[in-house]
Amino acid sequence: MHKVIFDTDPGIDDAMALLFLHRHPEIDLVGVTTVFGNASVDTTTRNALYLAEAWNIDAPVARGADRTIDPARKEGHWPTAIHGHNGIGDVVIPQSISRQADPRPAHQFIIDTVRAHPGEVTLVAVGRMTNLALALQAAPEITKLAKEVVIMGGAFDVPGNVTPAAEANIHGDPEAADIVFTAPWKVTVIGLDVTMKTVMTSGYLAKMVEAGADDVRLLSDISQLYIDFYKSRVGDGMVVHDSCACVYVVRPDLFETRSGSIRVVCGGIADGQTIQKPDGRGFPPSPWDGLPSQIVTTGIDPDGVLEAIRAALVEHRAA
Amino acid sequence: MHKVIFDTDPGIDDAMALLFLHRHPEIDLVGVTTVFGNASVDTTTRNALYLAEAWNIDAPVARGADRTIDPARKEGHWPTAIHGHNGIGDVVIPQSISRQADPRPAHQFIIDTVRAHPGEVTLVAVGRMTNLALALQAAPEITKLAKEVVIMGGAFDVPGNVTPAAEANIHGDPEAADIVFTAPWKVTVIGLDVTMKTVMTSGYLAKMVEAGADDVRLLSDISQLYIDFYKSRVGDGMVVHDSCACVYVVRPDLFETRSGSIRVVCGGIADGQTIQKPDGRGFPPSPWDGLPSQIVTTGIDPDGVLEAIRAALVEHRAA
Repeated sequence: MHKVIFDTDPGIDDAMALLFLHRHPEIDLVGVTTVFGNASVDTTTRNALYLAEAWNIDAPVARGADRTIDPARKEGHWPTAIHGHNGIGDVVIPQSISRQADPRPAHQFIIDTVRAHPGEVTLVAVGRMTNLALALQAAPEITKLAKEVVIMGGAFDVPGNVTPAAEANIHGDPEAADIVFTAPWKVTVIGLDVTMKTVMTSGYLAKMVEAGADDVRLLSDISQLYIDFYKSRVGDGMVVHDSCACVYVVRPDLFETRSGSIRVVCGGIADGQTIQKPDGRGFPPSPWDGLPSQIVTTGIDPDGVLEAIRAALVEHRAA
Repeated sequence: MHKVIFDTDPGIDDAMALLFLHRHPEIDLVGVTTVFGNASVDTTTRNALYLAEAWNIDAPVARGADRTIDPARKEGHWPTAIHGHNGIGDVVIPQSISRQADPRPAHQFIIDTVRAHPGEVTLVAVGRMTNLALALQAAPEITKLAKEVVIMGGAFDVPGNVTPAAEANIHGDPEAADIVFTAPWKVTVIGLDVTMKTVMTSGYLAKMVEAGADDVRLLSDISQLYIDFYKSRVGDGMVVHDSCACVYVVRPDLFETRSGSIRVVCGGIADGQTIQKPDGRGFPPSPWDGLPSQIVTTGIDPDGVLEAIRAALVEHRAA
């Protein structure tokens, strides 16, 4: 079993990833931490609590950062065209949600949980890296206590999505991402290089709804706005960015990888760009030297990943 | 016939490219301009004059920039491990060279020559972009008068070679390259994405020597140090970076391309990185907006390029 803390900003593809983690028989979801990004942290926390309630997810939900780790960064605007005004596709949400957030801030929840299960907890982070960076600053020893870190973010050998250089999660807090990538723990990065190849068609999703329970229907309702957004970009279907990172935890064999230290550009026209120095390549001295070698995913089996999602959501009903 | 001005810093792969341009039956080499880079501009100019004399190249040689366009940039060191202390593989060069440089600085020679043949001159630049940027600053109208610009430089979907982010020609003067890419003329960029795939083995070169004249033997002598350098990087052979750009002039069909505006990162850890915004991709407002769409080469037929070089050097002897 993989104990997972899911750091997320739901977010539509976040919702699918959350349901995958909840449902997968080899994953023990031990916590959900929220961060600003696809919407404000008020909204993403409300959404996480709503989904936890709707889907009977017992794991605690802890509210996280509402701003970048460098307070001097200007705040952006929320991507309402992609995730809706309420962050989950503008589906109607009940006025009152009985589930309450954990009293601790997300980064403290991460620290406590990692300490409680040394060597066992995988951190899967699919939003801005702010909570992880705050946890590293407050308790650097978690690098030795966490099992591994899997993030959705970055664009290495392909263009970004919010600028030609940068992907949204990293661009949203470049300093935080640079802290996470350069810390001495094992990080695997699931970036646009592989996620943009992993498109779930609306027909595929509809078949999952037919075969699944009510939770898949809610997921499908949430996803329609997102599918509309991607229509002009990838044709029919949704890019399942965040689920790719979650599938990696249980099926790393579906990915090709490249190792090497990673830095994030902070400032200038390439702000938020992720750049890896591939291991084994010689360069003159550079800011990539002496840093831990991390894993970038360069290839993916999209059909295998989609099948893993389908199987978890449809075949492995929650007990 | 393609009238070509060759802007170069010989340089070993520069030497091969120069011989290709001189020999190719569809190219009229109307000038050689020099720039610092593989060695000081004193050295690269001396080398260009030496090669012009040795190979009976009639085109004028004009000496160019000895520093970056932004004088605040720190000077780097010469890549003597690649190109030798004398810039052309440490072959013995005669003490006296009778050929003299054109009295004009390179950028003025470029301006005058482009003006003299409106719509006809292709600028092939395989070193730092300093001379071209100086020419653009002094006479912006050359964007309308030059036929096209073909450069060797940059790294788009692959790592750089002097840093994980940047290729040497662009890294050597990022501000100059940004001026050249964003000017309203047609630029085609032959970067590491394609040149690193184009390796001439020492056996291939040796066969050219057997079949060729003395000029190919001199080229081979010059190239041995460079072949040694690349042994640990690409195995046996030399990466014919600069010749790729020259072959493009006559055989664009050997390349795959992608269009979109290009910017160069100036400063920070990605200093000198080239980033293209692919046409047809939607992004929020960015520093790539409103700029001319340029051509990046993303694919190459390496065997076809090598054969084009061989044919020019061996079959098309100078008259």
